[in-house]
Amino acid sequence: MLDMHEIFIVTCIVVAALAFVFAFWLYAWVNKQPSENQKIAKVSDLIRKGANTFLRREYKVLAIFAGFVSVLIFVFLPQPIWNADADVIEHLEMTLSYIFGTVFSGLAGKIGIQVATIANKKTAEAAQKGIRPSFLCGFRGGAVMGMAVVGSSLLGVALIFWITNNATALLGFSFGASSLALFAKAGGGIFTKTADVSADLTGKVELGIPEDDPRNPAVIADNVGDNVGDVAGMGADLFDSHVASLSAALVMAVALGTEYIALVFCYGALGLFASILGVAAARMGKKDEPTIALNMSTYLTTGIFFVLTLLATIVFDFGEHKWRIWGAAIIGLFVGVIIGVATDYFTDDRRKPVHKLAEASEKGPAFTIITGVSYGFISVLPAMVGIGISALAAYKLLDIPGGDPLLPLYGISMAAVGMLSIVGMIISNDAYGPIVDNARGLAEMGELGDEVLDITDSLDSAGNTVKAITKGFAIGAAGLTVIALLGAFIAEVNAAANDLGVNLNITGFDVMDPLVFFGLIVGASVPAVFSAMLMLGVDRNAQKMVAEIHRQFDEIDGLKEGVEGVEPEYEKCIDIATTGALKELIPAGLFAILVTIIVGFVGGVQAIGGFLTGNIVSGLLLALFMSNSGGLWDNGKKYVESGHFGGKGSDTHKAAVIGDTVGDPFKDTAGPSINTQITVVSLVASLLSTLFILFSVIK
Amino acid sequence: MLDMHEIFIVTCIVVAALAFVFAFWLYAWVNKQPSENQKIAKVSDLIRKGANTFLRREYKVLAIFAGFVSVLIFVFLPQPIWNADADVIEHLEMTLSYIFGTVFSGLAGKIGIQVATIANKKTAEAAQKGIRPSFLCGFRGGAVMGMAVVGSSLLGVALIFWITNNATALLGFSFGASSLALFAKAGGGIFTKTADVSADLTGKVELGIPEDDPRNPAVIADNVGDNVGDVAGMGADLFDSHVASLSAALVMAVALGTEYIALVFCYGALGLFASILGVAAARMGKKDEPTIALNMSTYLTTGIFFVLTLLATIVFDFGEHKWRIWGAAIIGLFVGVIIGVATDYFTDDRRKPVHKLAEASEKGPAFTIITGVSYGFISVLPAMVGIGISALAAYKLLDIPGGDPLLPLYGISMAAVGMLSIVGMIISNDAYGPIVDNARGLAEMGELGDEVLDITDSLDSAGNTVKAITKGFAIGAAGLTVIALLGAFIAEVNAAANDLGVNLNITGFDVMDPLVFFGLIVGASVPAVFSAMLMLGVDRNAQKMVAEIHRQFDEIDGLKEGVEGVEPEYEKCIDIATTGALKELIPAGLFAILVTIIVGFVGGVQAIGGFLTGNIVSGLLLALFMSNSGGLWDNGKKYVESGHFGGKGSDTHKAAVIGDTVGDPFKDTAGPSINTQITVVSLVASLLSTLFILFSVIK
Repeated sequence: MLDMHEIFIVTCIVVAALAFVFAFWLYAWVNKQPSENQKIAKVSDLIRKGANTFLRREYKVLAIFAGFVSVLIFVFLPQPIWNADADVIEHLEMTLSYIFGTVFSGLAGKIGIQVATIANKKTAEAAQKGIRPSFLCGFRGGAVMGMAVVGSSLLGVALIFWITNNATALLGFSFGASSLALFAKAGGGIFTKTADVSADLTGKVELGIPEDDPRNPAVIADNVGDNVGDVAGMGADLFDSHVASLSAALVMAVALGTEYIALVFCYGALGLFASILGVAAARMGKKDEPTIALNMSTYLTTGIFFVLTLLATIVFDFGEHKWRIWGAAIIGLFVGVIIGVATDYFTDDRRKPVHKLAEASEKGPAFTIITGVSYGFISVLPAMVGIGISALAAYKLLDIPGGDPLLPLYGISMAAVGMLSIVGMIISNDAYGPIVDNARGLAEMGELGDEVLDITDSLDSAGNTVKAITKGFAIGAAGLTVIALLGAFIAEVNAAANDLGVNLNITGFDVMDPLVFFGLIVGASVPAVFSAMLMLGVDRNAQKMVAEIHRQFDEIDGLKEGVEGVEPEYEKCIDIATTGALKELIPAGLFAILVTIIVGFVGGVQAIGGFLTGNIVSGLLLALFMSNSGGLWDNGKKYVESGHFGGKGSDTHKAAVIGDTVGDPFKDTAGPSINTQITVVSLVASLLSTLFILFSVIK
Repeated sequence: MLDMHEIFIVTCIVVAALAFVFAFWLYAWVNKQPSENQKIAKVSDLIRKGANTFLRREYKVLAIFAGFVSVLIFVFLPQPIWNADADVIEHLEMTLSYIFGTVFSGLAGKIGIQVATIANKKTAEAAQKGIRPSFLCGFRGGAVMGMAVVGSSLLGVALIFWITNNATALLGFSFGASSLALFAKAGGGIFTKTADVSADLTGKVELGIPEDDPRNPAVIADNVGDNVGDVAGMGADLFDSHVASLSAALVMAVALGTEYIALVFCYGALGLFASILGVAAARMGKKDEPTIALNMSTYLTTGIFFVLTLLATIVFDFGEHKWRIWGAAIIGLFVGVIIGVATDYFTDDRRKPVHKLAEASEKGPAFTIITGVSYGFISVLPAMVGIGISALAAYKLLDIPGGDPLLPLYGISMAAVGMLSIVGMIISNDAYGPIVDNARGLAEMGELGDEVLDITDSLDSAGNTVKAITKGFAIGAAGLTVIALLGAFIAEVNAAANDLGVNLNITGFDVMDPLVFFGLIVGASVPAVFSAMLMLGVDRNAQKMVAEIHRQFDEIDGLKEGVEGVEPEYEKCIDIATTGALKELIPAGLFAILVTIIVGFVGGVQAIGGFLTGNIVSGLLLALFMSNSGGLWDNGKKYVESGHFGGKGSDTHKAAVIGDTVGDPFKDTAGPSINTQITVVSLVASLLSTLFILFSVIK
């Protein structure tokens, strides 16, 4: 007979299997859509080849890294293996969970790329039949990724927990997922923006040729970048957040009792199930805009999750506090939506910030930058307050007199689980973006005509709008998750201290303790340096690629003029982006991890507690600032292009393009990578807690 | 017979008097330097008139604000006056101390402007005799401000403490100083950058006429801005930091005993005395560069302070821990210098960041911005780690088994006192900058010839370099001071709770307490929003002024062509800058204060503890980022102008100018105002602690 929580573990496995079947069905559906245009097929092949080459080379680097870390984990975690009471089985569990995490994360990325690089051409050609079939094709292509990612996450967590019955092993799994995500995100982010920035600067700005013009040597690299950055990188990121939220909740649930474990799995399964229904129902009505279709399916998923968890909480016996826990999850869910809406305000071209930005651009690019930075700074307030309030409310809901002191932290972790419950839907919406962006490029290069271009343009623009919202959501979710991870860290530290026979019993981190404050202030600087390293990487690589493009225009006769049959050497640009990204992706992530380790071994557990807190706070601040100002610059430019303040080609437009170019690495390289950086650092701290207790310089 | 601490209070008063006498002597010396050029005299008069008009109008607005706050203070602080045990005398003390603080701060600014607007023309004309007399004139003009500010600060603190014997009244004095500084800094910062940005954009960029060309209608406003922003605003800022550091130390010293009080006054007096000697000794050697002369006098002051405090600590009986306290002060002093040096690295044109920035500008303005933001982000690390380590070291030095629990916090506050001890010298160096900047403008407008311009250029460039260092120093000092203020806040809360008969006994703020975390995350967003509001203010005003300049060029015949006798309407630009700055200076500061009050009344003391911590951490991060990236852009532009990567007029130069324009409000409006914002918010929290205990929604 199965325990209660085991029943829900099995449920998770069943729902995950369902998601896989559904993903496969979606994949088959996309695949059987017609695609006949040879020109498009050729370009699409180039894109797929480029993406796969990058992925293969990236995974090779990451495999070496992961192999090295696996050995370290086996030797040192949870404690040095030469210690008398070290348990080799436990070390093996940790190591395998870690490897499992990296492999799952890599697989999810690979599947996403596989589908996206087919869906792009199908979507482009479907646009010849109208916007509705084209939308469906793009959306279902993206949904394969959504289903695959959340299915893998749920399956992985359920299996590992069932087999090892050890929450620390889950943290190993989560660390595997997030360390891969950190590098995949950084690498993909650097690749995509290197290509994007170079293509824009040489094509749009210097030559005045349209975006996606086949004469531009960087145009294929740019499309490859959409896939490796926005599909694979983003999938790895949300995979990591989802796993982390479940793991953090389970670490605390284990200490609280079986019904608390059951609840985590139950809500996790229902979230994925709601996403399946939401995806299945998504389509454009006859009069809809694509943005409305995307948002409606999100709201639908939210509603389904609300009802299903309500029913489940009525039916099942999740203990006396079940309604409070349900409340915490629902708070998380709604705050996630609210953060998304607030983010939208700052990047929506019907709102004041975009208009003000376009207006400022009339006075020159310096004003474009100052205005964008300013609104970006202001935009952090609603999201930060939202995260603060949801954490406070979830905590207070479960702060019951006489209750277990872990309960309130469990409440926060369930708010994170609630917020991330609909992540399957979010990923589907998000992966839709690069697919239709690619489709737009293919339609241009395949010369499908203006009508088709209009359709793909409108799909692409919806993708951009929704991306801003999902990005805010992702940052909010990461925020709540890492607060929960802070709770998990304390639980881990106390368990480790207990095992070591040390009397520690940490309940919190007092900022008036100078070690905590020291950690806080150092931790706060890390996201700034981390994002700077990534941006400088883009900077360096883009300078190289721009030089290569100039060389091709100079040396290949007839290329600039568009003589029939003359083609640029696309592969050279893809190679520069690939090589550059691989060189740059390790240092920034390694820097964050190493500083964590140094602070831990210098200042011990208290310093690390402060470090994580500072890292979360400044990480959220900078991630929100960079994502939102980047989105604002992007849409400001589009607003000018649509004919305001002088329109395309005017000085205002030139200023707006400079803003957009600055915003590119802000919003697609640095900003979203910070999420993952925060999570990784939290997990490193939790995993190394025993070592910090044993070996720190200042005790 | 005087108590021990009273002897040192008297010493402070004597040294302050000495500083005033010295300041007067310097003033007289500067005043008796020859000035014969009529053209220069006319322009200099315009500048003085403009500065005085702005100051008068600004102080009128601030007087209304201060009057309103005085009433609030009298009625509500330290507790509602209708409470049974409220003491009217105490309320009166608080109110008068507050008013005293605002008046002293205003006076210091007024004196600084008075001298600076005389010293500018004297310095310009002295340059005809060579660089050494010109340097001395500029430096001594700045030193009047340095002596006046620190003399007033020391005198004010000593008198109020002696008369009231009440540390809380000191916080009132400090609040008066810092609330005035907040607005003076914001107002001056908006004024100066409105004028600077507009003058550069219309003059340098659009027309290609040199900086300070008399045809430019904004040129006088720009020179006025140097005075009201960099002299008066900066003086108010450092006055505020100095007062706050002494006050925070005294709040804790009162609880610790008379010898601890004596130490604060002793080190304060010796710091000012060391600065007097340093200023008196400063001059350029025959082969020196001005930068070397400025830095040497700083190092000399540091050395003198070191020796004097060493001797004083040997001679006087400051209790058994006196050597540890001396150690804390010296740590602060040296970390201040180290932070300055680290800041210098990121803005010095002989170092990699400036070269990389100039190189990136070759590829277009977007790269200028991305590179500048990236190095700005990286530059926060050494300063943050420095502040963290000095706080940790000072704390640990005084964390003595069996010692008073307040001792370690007193140690941190003494590190801040040590760091700020040489502030008289720092202000002198800092005020030197705008004086020689003005002198350069006067030399240009007075047509003193290329040789003189070369001299003033070289003096000006030294001013810019030293400014970057002193800015890093000022931010570091503010950082340590507010950590000390956090300690003072706890002391205040516990004293208030004690008076109210409430059992609170707060020892710290645990980040795992959701109220603390909530405060933390909200507090961290405030500096971002605050600086955005200021930058948008500059943005709005500069757009207005650019329009006015265009109007003048269009409507005034012969202006553009520089026809003899045709003059622009300088006053109109001064008026736009003045009116705009007055309109924008209140909202941002008020926002920060109001959010503090809201968080306090919602979440109580714990939320405020978190709020202050988040505010400090993100405030330091953003202040360092904006100051340093701004300085980097400025010097990057100058590096290109000196002939690198294409030199003046090239596309690289245009890109670098855009970077510099973005950097202007970063480094001279938003960045340095954050310092003051942090201090003000800390003081508001301390002063309102009783009310928060009594009336918060969540207890």
